[in-house]
Amino acid sequence: MIVVMKAGAARKDVDSVMDLIRELGLRPQPIFGAERTIVGVVGALDEEKAGLIEQLESFPFVDRAVPVSRPYKFASRDWRPGKTIIEVNGVKIGGPQLVIMAGPCTVESRGQLLETAHAVKEAGATILRGGAFKPSTSPYSFHGLGRQGLELLAEASRETGLPVITEVLDPDDLAACEEFANILQIGTRNMANFALLRKVGRSRLPIMLKRGMASTIDEWLQAAEYILAEGNSNVMLCERGIRTFETSTRNTFDVNGMAVALERSHLPVVADPSQATGHRYLVPPVSKAAVAAGADALIIEVHPDPAHAKKDGAQSLTIPEFQKLMADLKILAAAVNRPLSMQDS
Amino acid sequence: MIVVMKAGAARKDVDSVMDLIRELGLRPQPIFGAERTIVGVVGALDEEKAGLIEQLESFPFVDRAVPVSRPYKFASRDWRPGKTIIEVNGVKIGGPQLVIMAGPCTVESRGQLLETAHAVKEAGATILRGGAFKPSTSPYSFHGLGRQGLELLAEASRETGLPVITEVLDPDDLAACEEFANILQIGTRNMANFALLRKVGRSRLPIMLKRGMASTIDEWLQAAEYILAEGNSNVMLCERGIRTFETSTRNTFDVNGMAVALERSHLPVVADPSQATGHRYLVPPVSKAAVAAGADALIIEVHPDPAHAKKDGAQSLTIPEFQKLMADLKILAAAVNRPLSMQDS
Amino acid sequence: MIVVMKAGAARKDVDSVMDLIRELGLRPQPIFGAERTIVGVVGALDEEKAGLIEQLESFPFVDRAVPVSRPYKFASRDWRPGKTIIEVNGVKIGGPQLVIMAGPCTVESRGQLLETAHAVKEAGATILRGGAFKPSTSPYSFHGLGRQGLELLAEASRETGLPVITEVLDPDDLAACEEFANILQIGTRNMANFALLRKVGRSRLPIMLKRGMASTIDEWLQAAEYILAEGNSNVMLCERGIRTFETSTRNTFDVNGMAVALERSHLPVVADPSQATGHRYLVPPVSKAAVAAGADALIIEVHPDPAHAKKDGAQSLTIPEFQKLMADLKILAAAVNRPLSMQDS
Amino acid sequence: MIVVMKAGAARKDVDSVMDLIRELGLRPQPIFGAERTIVGVVGALDEEKAGLIEQLESFPFVDRAVPVSRPYKFASRDWRPGKTIIEVNGVKIGGPQLVIMAGPCTVESRGQLLETAHAVKEAGATILRGGAFKPSTSPYSFHGLGRQGLELLAEASRETGLPVITEVLDPDDLAACEEFANILQIGTRNMANFALLRKVGRSRLPIMLKRGMASTIDEWLQAAEYILAEGNSNVMLCERGIRTFETSTRNTFDVNGMAVALERSHLPVVADPSQATGHRYLVPPVSKAAVAAGADALIIEVHPDPAHAKKDGAQSLTIPEFQKLMADLKILAAAVNRPLSMQDS
Repeated sequence: MIVVMKAGAARKDVDSVMDLIRELGLRPQPIFGAERTIVGVVGALDEEKAGLIEQLESFPFVDRAVPVSRPYKFASRDWRPGKTIIEVNGVKIGGPQLVIMAGPCTVESRGQLLETAHAVKEAGATILRGGAFKPSTSPYSFHGLGRQGLELLAEASRETGLPVITEVLDPDDLAACEEFANILQIGTRNMANFALLRKVGRSRLPIMLKRGMASTIDEWLQAAEYILAEGNSNVMLCERGIRTFETSTRNTFDVNGMAVALERSHLPVVADPSQATGHRYLVPPVSKAAVAAGADALIIEVHPDPAHAKKDGAQSLTIPEFQKLMADLKILAAAVNRPLSMQDS
Repeated sequence: MIVVMKAGAARKDVDSVMDLIRELGLRPQPIFGAERTIVGVVGALDEEKAGLIEQLESFPFVDRAVPVSRPYKFASRDWRPGKTIIEVNGVKIGGPQLVIMAGPCTVESRGQLLETAHAVKEAGATILRGGAFKPSTSPYSFHGLGRQGLELLAEASRETGLPVITEVLDPDDLAACEEFANILQIGTRNMANFALLRKVGRSRLPIMLKRGMASTIDEWLQAAEYILAEGNSNVMLCERGIRTFETSTRNTFDVNGMAVALERSHLPVVADPSQATGHRYLVPPVSKAAVAAGADALIIEVHPDPAHAKKDGAQSLTIPEFQKLMADLKILAAAVNRPLSMQDS
Repeated sequence: MIVVMKAGAARKDVDSVMDLIRELGLRPQPIFGAERTIVGVVGALDEEKAGLIEQLESFPFVDRAVPVSRPYKFASRDWRPGKTIIEVNGVKIGGPQLVIMAGPCTVESRGQLLETAHAVKEAGATILRGGAFKPSTSPYSFHGLGRQGLELLAEASRETGLPVITEVLDPDDLAACEEFANILQIGTRNMANFALLRKVGRSRLPIMLKRGMASTIDEWLQAAEYILAEGNSNVMLCERGIRTFETSTRNTFDVNGMAVALERSHLPVVADPSQATGHRYLVPPVSKAAVAAGADALIIEVHPDPAHAKKDGAQSLTIPEFQKLMADLKILAAAVNRPLSMQDS
Repeated sequence: MIVVMKAGAARKDVDSVMDLIRELGLRPQPIFGAERTIVGVVGALDEEKAGLIEQLESFPFVDRAVPVSRPYKFASRDWRPGKTIIEVNGVKIGGPQLVIMAGPCTVESRGQLLETAHAVKEAGATILRGGAFKPSTSPYSFHGLGRQGLELLAEASRETGLPVITEVLDPDDLAACEEFANILQIGTRNMANFALLRKVGRSRLPIMLKRGMASTIDEWLQAAEYILAEGNSNVMLCERGIRTFETSTRNTFDVNGMAVALERSHLPVVADPSQATGHRYLVPPVSKAAVAAGADALIIEVHPDPAHAKKDGAQSLTIPEFQKLMADLKILAAAVNRPLSMQDS
């Protein structure tokens, strides 16, 4: 860490900062500049000292404290230079192959789910997505079928052989989700719900952690750190678009941020072009962009009849649209040395 | 609601939209324009029909559906034209008087809390704030004293007579928070944690709901609606700054948004200049701005020794700084016809 | 257009809105809903009526006016359903081939420019970029070689046969830029400098219009409309990243926005992964993302010795890095049916 | 400046950074930490060295370079600790009194302007605003009366004795604006139009520089530095709202940012609650907020008949609304020790 003193700080002010640093078992090293003094902090800043920045910034003669290291450990490439590969029923996320997760936004009925599950499997998806508990901005919207939705997902999984990913919203539903699903999703609204993060950190299932809609990359990786620090090392990240001033799309897919996450962390990164755009016609170009930029997987909303979908119909692909996209992705993925994962491979 | 068709939509496409509207018991009224057709929807859009916008937007020949009414009911001025006044141990929030809540960001020790509590009371605060369970971006930061912090808050409350507001993070801690505190705070990171919102909606205590750091006013009011719809009508809103591109402050205090909330809703609105700025020197000007623009209350972080605070020292006022601010606010509040609430008044 | 009245608007308020609409030669068509009245406006809203929305929104009993059509004409797909192809010295931008523009951020010296120009040509670029007049946040930074830079660009163009794109900042320099360059660039800071837009709208040269760093797609297309309306139909758009809350990258490349622009407009769209990311290591993944999502061209900063570049060294590729990227792009472009344009093709 | 090396940087990498620093006549001072090395740079970073940060960041083994000083000189409190007071025809902006500028968004006619000018003068405004050249997102909107508008402003100024502020958009109109007006406004879209900034930097008139809608405080102060560096020391800043994700208001008034600017710079700061909100009902609360937070002046749009205004009617106050606001501001300004400036004082 580097402490930048204010322009007029006196020698005794610098000394008091140096004293605090020494109290913590660290070594201060000052540089007296023409206008300002800075103090370098030498020594490992471990967990107990995480609050040091805030503490130093509260000194009246300190301008700011600049961290030098990243604020996470287990999520970092420094901890694990190689890539984490998460295996779910034989599907490897983070490995050399591109993985496609697909299915309806929300489980609405047995018929809708099974039709979609069979269709996405046939088109090449190897993981089935589907929401049983759905967050919604309005308390009056459809919030999913709940436990019945989980049971239908499990049935679809048995029928198709596809493992299932579903969102957990409420700690009270965690046990049920763990019983019926194979991967648990933490949604964008809960990225900083630290109580829930700690709980899924103690789950035996892999977790897909969506980026908060206004979270920086480093906040996202620190949220992952909550799960990792509890002992669950099977965390994958999901870039699903951030909130910006632009109103022509539901969110702004942050392809830069996805590439930064792939560089800073060893965790697999999934892209969600459906949530990131909010419009069906944008799902194919943004899916391709994500794959070209190095996404480990895509998660795509598909519905047999979007015009009658209970949620997110506007961003759901029809089955023929999904088939067309998969055909395009097969060629694209090969061109970027990231062949499509196939169920039987 | 208004449905805007795409430019090339055929008559049969318009008919299919009109059919769907009629299926829901509503009346479609088309206007055939030179370039486009629009369809007005007449009839009450109640709870069950909340998904209609999404459904209509998923039709391929629909450009967009534009809601005409606000997406909340109990939080709206239409529901209650007058102002909601929330009384907590004799302190009225939302009434003619300005209320000041103050105290440490986090309860660190008995001594720190009691010294601060007595000081803020003497300076004119009528509600004591203090965190026992603290959210933190890093899993390795200080997360508060937990239940012991709650007990200390209750002790400070008994000693000073000030009611206490504290944040609840985890549903598992809700009962304890209810036991020891007088107002429950939902923090910015949990504004869209709908499971938690529903639970505090069944609490007997008033709730202060902070705005999500990237939430629009209407999303904030819909989050309040989750609580109100469960039967807890004592909800106050708290504007605590939004996330923008500006990096010289921790957040951007949205004074516009605060004024919009005061217009659209009958719920009291509290301003948090400490979180909204992140810098001690900005707390007084932003506090004054909030009062001048109509805030019902302020919540301010005060620490007897910010340089040794465990959290948020950089934005905490010292006790003399708080006393000075209170003296200024007394004059300002009177000038905007919003006299300071006093404990004995 | 649709006018949404406020909830309590009286019949006479609706009438006054309808009168104003009729005064403009348009036909109002009211729909009286349960809670609110809306008024549809039928008839062509031409240039003279562009202010109608603002005028209607200033009525006290009008909640808002919602435009139904896009606020531009010549930039729209409705005006020209096919794609605009801009030909510059035989290079076709917007056609079936992907075009690569490359070169130094800023012309620093004859040696630096010629070395780069030859290298990028050899690697497959068909347009040479280089700044002679450089905008800079600080008045004290390097602002380019000015006219001498233009002369060097013209020399490099003669030597390599590559046409040249350069930025025009000041109307006073427009004639010189027109004399020496083949395409004029309007930078992000000048996207809404309407005086300059009108002037380049009267130029005989094609214009590359960068998106303002906080401009919506529709504002960007309206800026293009300023140029098109003056008679210059050779406008290409350039997505160069938008400003968001994220600080780990210089800007956020808006791949969604690029895809929206390609859908709404017939104008070619260029992607600038150098400006959009600010970091050399992000240029390859974001270049690939842009191509996969349908970019017509890329503009990439290359420098023979980035560590000694006068501007933007951190985001400039070295010559070997550019060669590697071009090799990758050749395969990728073919996979998305967008073969690389070659100079001799 | 501080240079943070990457985690794996070798001793020779650190040496090459230190060599570059020495080449520039500065002194490098390294601190070898446990994980990383940082290098402090001692010595004055003057104008010629402004590009050093960019240069250092382009070294492959440098993580980032962190500036320690503010990137402007004449705009800084370090340069002039006291406050700049700008006197225009006897009105002092930046002094102990609050100044109100008011008038129509756009000059539409002699009658409209004179009626407004007399009314705002009578209500207590001491500077008349009015646009002759108006920027507009659409090329087809009303762009003002041009030179005729300037002449009308001069006439209104003669009649009322109020000095006039008007926006200059095009360098070609600068001479005419200087002839007829007393203060020149640079609008938000031109904040980074450096060619125009340099030109008004050579004007004899005071300049009001609006903040760019996505500009940070430091970018805004650097834009002011362009004007100051040309020799025009009469620059006032104007906070007019920034662009954020919130859509219920036209912009987000950044009261934090205004307070930061007042702290970092000696230049007077004007607040524009009309542009910052876009809604008439928000102008009074945001005006009051700005005054309470320390604004030196307000600039407010007033129209005798907003429903027939050619621009920005929705955010213009009627004359009675303005009178009411002025009455409230008189009391508020006194309460914050900032009495209203009166023309005859």
